[in-house]
Amino acid sequence: MKKVDVVVLGGLSGITAGISCRRHYPGKKVIMVRKEGTVLIPCGIPYIYGTVGGPENNVIPDGLLENNGIELIKGEAIDVDRAQKVVTLKDGETIGYDKLVFATGSVPLVPPIPGIDKENVYPVKKEFDYLSEVQQKMSGVKELVIIGGGFIGMEFADECRKGRNINVTVVEALPHCLQMAMDNEFCEEAQARLAETGVNILVNEKVEAILGDGKVSGVRLAGGKELKADMVILGIGAVPNTELAAKAGLELGFKKTIKVDRYMQTYTDPDVYACGDCAEKQSFFDGRPTGIMLASIATSEARIAGANLYSPTHQNCGAISVFSTVINGRAFGVAGLTERMANQTGAKIIIGTAEAPDTHPGGMPNSCPLKVKLLFAKDTGVILGGSISGGKSVGEMVNVLSACIMHRMTIDDMVKFQMGTHPALTASPIMYPIVNAACTAIIPLKGIA
Amino acid sequence: MKKVDVVVLGGLSGITAGISCRRHYPGKKVIMVRKEGTVLIPCGIPYIYGTVGGPENNVIPDGLLENNGIELIKGEAIDVDRAQKVVTLKDGETIGYDKLVFATGSVPLVPPIPGIDKENVYPVKKEFDYLSEVQQKMSGVKELVIIGGGFIGMEFADECRKGRNINVTVVEALPHCLQMAMDNEFCEEAQARLAETGVNILVNEKVEAILGDGKVSGVRLAGGKELKADMVILGIGAVPNTELAAKAGLELGFKKTIKVDRYMQTYTDPDVYACGDCAEKQSFFDGRPTGIMLASIATSEARIAGANLYSPTHQNCGAISVFSTVINGRAFGVAGLTERMANQTGAKIIIGTAEAPDTHPGGMPNSCPLKVKLLFAKDTGVILGGSISGGKSVGEMVNVLSACIMHRMTIDDMVKFQMGTHPALTASPIMYPIVNAACTAIIPLKGIA
Repeated sequence: MKKVDVVVLGGLSGITAGISCRRHYPGKKVIMVRKEGTVLIPCGIPYIYGTVGGPENNVIPDGLLENNGIELIKGEAIDVDRAQKVVTLKDGETIGYDKLVFATGSVPLVPPIPGIDKENVYPVKKEFDYLSEVQQKMSGVKELVIIGGGFIGMEFADECRKGRNINVTVVEALPHCLQMAMDNEFCEEAQARLAETGVNILVNEKVEAILGDGKVSGVRLAGGKELKADMVILGIGAVPNTELAAKAGLELGFKKTIKVDRYMQTYTDPDVYACGDCAEKQSFFDGRPTGIMLASIATSEARIAGANLYSPTHQNCGAISVFSTVINGRAFGVAGLTERMANQTGAKIIIGTAEAPDTHPGGMPNSCPLKVKLLFAKDTGVILGGSISGGKSVGEMVNVLSACIMHRMTIDDMVKFQMGTHPALTASPIMYPIVNAACTAIIPLKGIA
Repeated sequence: MKKVDVVVLGGLSGITAGISCRRHYPGKKVIMVRKEGTVLIPCGIPYIYGTVGGPENNVIPDGLLENNGIELIKGEAIDVDRAQKVVTLKDGETIGYDKLVFATGSVPLVPPIPGIDKENVYPVKKEFDYLSEVQQKMSGVKELVIIGGGFIGMEFADECRKGRNINVTVVEALPHCLQMAMDNEFCEEAQARLAETGVNILVNEKVEAILGDGKVSGVRLAGGKELKADMVILGIGAVPNTELAAKAGLELGFKKTIKVDRYMQTYTDPDVYACGDCAEKQSFFDGRPTGIMLASIATSEARIAGANLYSPTHQNCGAISVFSTVINGRAFGVAGLTERMANQTGAKIIIGTAEAPDTHPGGMPNSCPLKVKLLFAKDTGVILGGSISGGKSVGEMVNVLSACIMHRMTIDDMVKFQMGTHPALTASPIMYPIVNAACTAIIPLKGIA
């Protein structure tokens, strides 16, 4: 039997947890066990079907493990004996550990729709060969139906039409696509942008059945309407991959995620940690469990878990939830709460908004209008969240907001925020919309308006 | 005699101060008095000569004043009678005020080099007609010498060669261009990028005389070497425009800036405020006076000044100094201290560095390598500054750092920073270099390395 200090089970966040562990405890021997031959960049999966051209261009190189002195074992862990501290692989190999990290991630949610198991119906699995097969099959497809208008669905819809003569329809059960993530005005902007590419978008529509004789031929909606389809992509969310954890006797919490404390240590076993999609998350705001799954949260938790394995070092302050997407060339991002979420909690909020070109003067090449919406708690002025649409700078602008939220900046702080500006890179110092949105928010706080 | 509540003297930061005042005190009548017919975007001036095509494409529209109910008087204020609270213009008009804001900015520093007043020698003034004249003259120029390798000089050098068959030479007295702003490794990267465009860069060279018979024909360096020149641009810095303030009896401080407190109120007169390049600045870090002049600092101070006119509202926490530039398509930015500055104060620091492509996978279109360097105080782990080079996202990434610096985040905070990531917009969650630079900085802090 092999014996090491640390065994990490799983892919993306496992890499980061392993690196973090080795950085803090360079004397420890770390083995990563994973089923997948190669780890795909999860957020890059939709781009396989358009911009990057194939799964081979969307992998996380294993060199990252080698360079950090982490041994990789490609195999499936099928049993964890916590009493003996031994992991058993499918091929019978056993590995003894001192500390164990679950980074087993998530698998796509497959709803019990009749016909869901027909040929050419694809939940978005993070598996190389599977996604390759989808790509090959897609070349013959004329009618693609995407079930679910979240990020995955919207990005797939945008990408699949690139270089393909294909009809794409997105079917969303809620009144807006991206509604779980963004406020209505941004959802509407995103939908309009996607519609411009020729994608059909159906909202308020539930899929009742997937039709066809073996192979999918169509989709029937709740109202009885039928859509032709020779391929269906399912993008309606993911569920944590925690079967092995449950079998190992680890306590599961919200939506079957592994219960962990702020050190990412499992409730059940002080020598077992968990991070990423398989681990329970608490909201940064109210501390309640949240079902948010983002690669950026997963890696953040992994850095914390890896550092804490032999000494409690970093505390997880809860998920702020920061993300961005691009739909037909327009970027959208949110950090923290949306107005919808804040209203659901009953919070009294103040909203500030501002718009500006993302260069100055606006006549610089590739200039793009930015739209910023900030939310503050009415009685304290503390920032709760922000939404932005615009050009590529949105990706880092939501990170500016994330830093502000993390330290509970107030309207006063944000009015005084010292941004750097440059004609080709940012909005003008007079117009800088994060600051100006905060300026407009101060007025109701002062009771003037 | 006209009588209003607030008179603002000056351009860029005056606009922001006026808007801020009107936002907080909508009942107040505000007049802006300025000499210039139009206000240019100061950071956009180098781009007049290349990317944007002329000064007419680089103006701040006066509609901004109109929309905010601010009256504009184009004229030169030549006297302020603080006892009577009256401003007198050159044409004899007088305006009574309750509160007065100096936002008179800066003028280019013109060193006493022999021959500096020859024809075709141009300090970079922020004046429309003047800059138009420079543009017209430039069309006949074959040999352009730029004195000063700071931002203005480097950006002019980069822009003036766009669409022009012209030899450009930058002459810098220090060992590196941009040395006052960036650490050597970034200066060297910027110089190399600029040299690739065909610009000649001379460092460690002082200009001793400007040669020519009426019109400039060359430049003589301290070693005796002569450069041919039929135009010279001077970009060696600026001095505050505070003659009128001095005449009005306001106390001047560091390098003849107007002395102000944290509310931007002048030391001398509770009804007179100042902001922008003409106002004294203190460093966010040590609180000492600093000569930094940035449009973004000016507008930040203007928001503070305008809000405070009738009630102390916002306190200026001192200049962090955040900026970015683009040299031959590569962006450079710094927030807070550089290693050079930190060493000058004797601070014990820890440096963290990381590199990553600014997209993920790196094969996304227009991907560009990012280089991040962070500085932390050794004994507290508090972030002191950061430098970044990369693609366009650098402009907002330094703003992420600015938010972190403003709230004195520690290495621990930054390791846990929750960035949003997206394949087309940011580095990958595993590689995100601001976080990973913080991760590498924690090791010396822990005493491992």
